[in-house]
Amino acid sequence: MALATPYLMFVGDAPDQLAAKVAIGVVHWRPDWCVGQLRLDGCKADLGIPDMTIEDAVKAGCKTMVIGVANRGGVIPDHWTGVIVQAIEAGMDVAAGLHKKLSDVPAIAEAAKAHGRTLTDARHPSRDFDVASGQARAGHRLLTVGTDVSVGKMFTSLAIEKELKARGAKADFRATGQTGIFIAGDGVSVDAVVADFIAGAAEWLTPGNDPDHWDVVEGQGSLFHASYSGVTLGLIHGSRPTALVVCHDAARTEMRGTPGVPVPDLADCIEANERMARMFEPGAKVYGVSVNTSSMGDAEAATYLSEMSARLGLPAVDAVRTGVGPIVDALLEG
Amino acid sequence: MALATPYLMFVGDAPDQLAAKVAIGVVHWRPDWCVGQLRLDGCKADLGIPDMTIEDAVKAGCKTMVIGVANRGGVIPDHWTGVIVQAIEAGMDVAAGLHKKLSDVPAIAEAAKAHGRTLTDARHPSRDFDVASGQARAGHRLLTVGTDVSVGKMFTSLAIEKELKARGAKADFRATGQTGIFIAGDGVSVDAVVADFIAGAAEWLTPGNDPDHWDVVEGQGSLFHASYSGVTLGLIHGSRPTALVVCHDAARTEMRGTPGVPVPDLADCIEANERMARMFEPGAKVYGVSVNTSSMGDAEAATYLSEMSARLGLPAVDAVRTGVGPIVDALLEG
Repeated sequence: MALATPYLMFVGDAPDQLAAKVAIGVVHWRPDWCVGQLRLDGCKADLGIPDMTIEDAVKAGCKTMVIGVANRGGVIPDHWTGVIVQAIEAGMDVAAGLHKKLSDVPAIAEAAKAHGRTLTDARHPSRDFDVASGQARAGHRLLTVGTDVSVGKMFTSLAIEKELKARGAKADFRATGQTGIFIAGDGVSVDAVVADFIAGAAEWLTPGNDPDHWDVVEGQGSLFHASYSGVTLGLIHGSRPTALVVCHDAARTEMRGTPGVPVPDLADCIEANERMARMFEPGAKVYGVSVNTSSMGDAEAATYLSEMSARLGLPAVDAVRTGVGPIVDALLEG
Repeated sequence: MALATPYLMFVGDAPDQLAAKVAIGVVHWRPDWCVGQLRLDGCKADLGIPDMTIEDAVKAGCKTMVIGVANRGGVIPDHWTGVIVQAIEAGMDVAAGLHKKLSDVPAIAEAAKAHGRTLTDARHPSRDFDVASGQARAGHRLLTVGTDVSVGKMFTSLAIEKELKARGAKADFRATGQTGIFIAGDGVSVDAVVADFIAGAAEWLTPGNDPDHWDVVEGQGSLFHASYSGVTLGLIHGSRPTALVVCHDAARTEMRGTPGVPVPDLADCIEANERMARMFEPGAKVYGVSVNTSSMGDAEAATYLSEMSARLGLPAVDAVRTGVGPIVDALLEG
């Protein structure tokens, strides 16, 4: 995949900020790559970076236009096609993370072919993978796991990568979902891989590396989520984490998407993930928990995290509120 | 899918019996459906059923020609195409479990279209699945799991279905692989489903049923196999087994396909599978172990099974040598 940077962020006619959350994530974590935003009439989202036309963006050196907006059904509406074709004609690649593929829109596919540009559909694996070899390899690998889906695994992974680098450690964020792929410039949407190749894709993503290098792998799903646990276990066994961080949302009581199923206890979640990871990496262990406490006031959150830390005997942080420093301390102490 | 029966078994020019193992399995478990075999010049396999031409088979009422032979690379060689087209022209559907799709061979696709016949590629899911709902449902569900891949999960499942029916219980074998699909006449190759939908496919395969009905689900992979554990966990969480049977090969010391990785201890395997199944079905338990003891003499096998049974406190059988009676006793006692 390996997207060319910098990016022009296409926000389209996003009805609100939430619809632009992919673009917002990319701008947050890779501000240097996001040179400008392109908004259509009626756009209600703002990334806080300069508005640009296709022409401006090319002049500013943009190499890829990233479709950073979600819409109902994941389609590419007709009124986006003209701008996308214009970007291609002006010499940019185009990347999207929609269900519908860019290359399935004839006008876009034809323009890309005519102008020799690359279309990247981050939700659709563009490589074939081998089945996992199951072999040991050098380097540290950290995987974020969760009590549920959508509990901050990507955010926590990126915060840990940033903190490791700030301490002078060698670290690379490894992306397993569409937003992460735009942020890393490469990666694989593991949940879109054919089932037999989940672990193989995760293995490809995390090759052997220097003994003091950290691959920080974006987790997906949860061992405790009835719909997605297979993706999670394939990711655990393929990426062979030496370190795990458990993510959690303090306000969540029921698993997202499966009504009536309670969120597991954190101690139970730690035990299950360590059990699975240790099948192949006997030294694998959870180094901390990263909790979204946005539902709480400052004092309540501080008490919650401190009690959680005491109960589990592990650093407990909120990656947004407190940062991940204490977890990175524990990682570097080993 | 729902294949039309009875079948004409196409064995092609199989170089030996092993190459025809899919066909042999179908004939073994569904003799009434396998009216005849079609062998090409040079065929070294024999299913022990009448040789038939396409014409004979149509007269005998065959509705589907099943390609029950594997070859290197899973392709459809040119010299098979004529016979396959002839079968279609004579009014039969065609089903195969090769990597290459029947419908990707233009002559076969055109003949099927012209004559309104159905082509079934059992390795390639032909339906879209929803993500799993994670909801409880009525009925007993038994899933075979294993210490490794290729340890007799399909055979054990079919033997249990047969024994349950012999005792007057309501039971249906639910197929998750190509040979199983030909035997059940329907099913889904779960390892070929997109990762996000593994559990959803397993849920589709095992809908709610009468409280005294048994779905006997063919397992895939192993929680302990680095390459395929994601498929296994998705199958566990999607099919929500109330009962598990652990399959094992007494001669296996190393996991198939991942050199140097030892086969897990049976007690460990039982614990891990129960742990995962009980996340959603708190009453799920292992009712017995089914061991391939073909590497042993009779006396050695009997001692092995009896010691295993004593150590684990569970029935231990060899589905071929002793039958699965003691496991079905335990299932029906509850």
